[in-house]
Amino acid sequence: MNFTAAAKMAQAQGIKADYVIVNDDVSIAEKGNRRGTTITVLVHKIAGAAAEEGWTLPEVKRVAQKVIDNGRDIGIALTPCSVPAAGKPTFELGPDEIEFGIGIHGEPGVQRMKYMTSSELAKIMVDKIVDDLKLQKGDEIFLVVQGTGGTPYMEKFVFYRDVRKYVESLGFKVFGSWIGEFMTSLEMQGGRVAILRLDEELKRLLMAPAYTIAIRTIGPIPLPVVT
Amino acid sequence: MNFTAAAKMAQAQGIKADYVIVNDDVSIAEKGNRRGTTITVLVHKIAGAAAEEGWTLPEVKRVAQKVIDNGRDIGIALTPCSVPAAGKPTFELGPDEIEFGIGIHGEPGVQRMKYMTSSELAKIMVDKIVDDLKLQKGDEIFLVVQGTGGTPYMEKFVFYRDVRKYVESLGFKVFGSWIGEFMTSLEMQGGRVAILRLDEELKRLLMAPAYTIAIRTIGPIPLPVVT
Repeated sequence: MNFTAAAKMAQAQGIKADYVIVNDDVSIAEKGNRRGTTITVLVHKIAGAAAEEGWTLPEVKRVAQKVIDNGRDIGIALTPCSVPAAGKPTFELGPDEIEFGIGIHGEPGVQRMKYMTSSELAKIMVDKIVDDLKLQKGDEIFLVVQGTGGTPYMEKFVFYRDVRKYVESLGFKVFGSWIGEFMTSLEMQGGRVAILRLDEELKRLLMAPAYTIAIRTIGPIPLPVVT
Repeated sequence: MNFTAAAKMAQAQGIKADYVIVNDDVSIAEKGNRRGTTITVLVHKIAGAAAEEGWTLPEVKRVAQKVIDNGRDIGIALTPCSVPAAGKPTFELGPDEIEFGIGIHGEPGVQRMKYMTSSELAKIMVDKIVDDLKLQKGDEIFLVVQGTGGTPYMEKFVFYRDVRKYVESLGFKVFGSWIGEFMTSLEMQGGRVAILRLDEELKRLLMAPAYTIAIRTIGPIPLPVVT
């Protein structure tokens, strides 16, 4: 609501502005109610590269929408976070519980689960995305595995390995991946998986040079070896 | 002990091998007892760039030692971490306590302090490094501010701002900086500050292209704006 209002105010002042709605969070069944999560970062990266090349606004919007149409994300929490203004955790979670299908503002997810292994969790999360995206064997994908702000690197790499092995076992080709922290929820411990189905246009713009604190791209990203 | 033994075993097999000892942790007064912390990563980056250029082993060792001679680090913890094999926290810390002068393996630090603001902590940590390195006004430095594994990005950026403002107020020129997670202690919440005094040789090798999961360098790193 705020973003569309901002776009309309800018248009009223004669500024060329438009918007897209990112709704990549597959934990919610109804597409109209879905939140925007990790795919937002890939929209920024790809639409940003297009804008830097001088594309027109409608063309930038077209490719941004293509990212949205081909990207999905899902997240889980092992601990809540505390929003500073509230000063207390946003939900309560037992020591052996997983909050499944979280957003990015610390709000609760859509389902509570019992602890399971990293590879079991990888399967459940990837299946949700694959079903929703209707991914086909042989599809080329970009894979983002991230923590939610307070997740140690060792756990991110263990979880990445399980996600990577599972998506490859399903017959998808992993063109590249990011492992780290890209869209986080303060000190929450947990993880997110995002998958973007690629074509040549998306690949080229995704790999276009960028040099920020969070994203540094200088060409095809070497894939970590997974055994 | 293990590393020197490994170097000697390799030498005995006719492999050219040598070692340096990183002792950058200024929390310990006696230099002979100091641990190797964040500067280890800068030794790898700079000695690695030299080796990639085909330098001889003694020359690579010389520049590695130069990094050690010009680099210092200090770390603090707000929570302990749990080493998986032990399965319990490595020390206990009250909710308003800071463990000052920690290593990287989850062991306790050298002093327990009460909570203070990020800017007060920045001053104490930077002063320790500046005194030990005998930094002079006008010296050019590389600044690393990092979390210890479980520290949210918002807190890393707040702390970076305080460290950066303080080192600049002392008259040092910040050539570049890394903000993130480079040498961590599992899920520990806390932070580390490392400073490397630069000359032209170190600057060039530090900025040499590298493309790994943790370190991606393609030229001088744009400094975040601090206000």
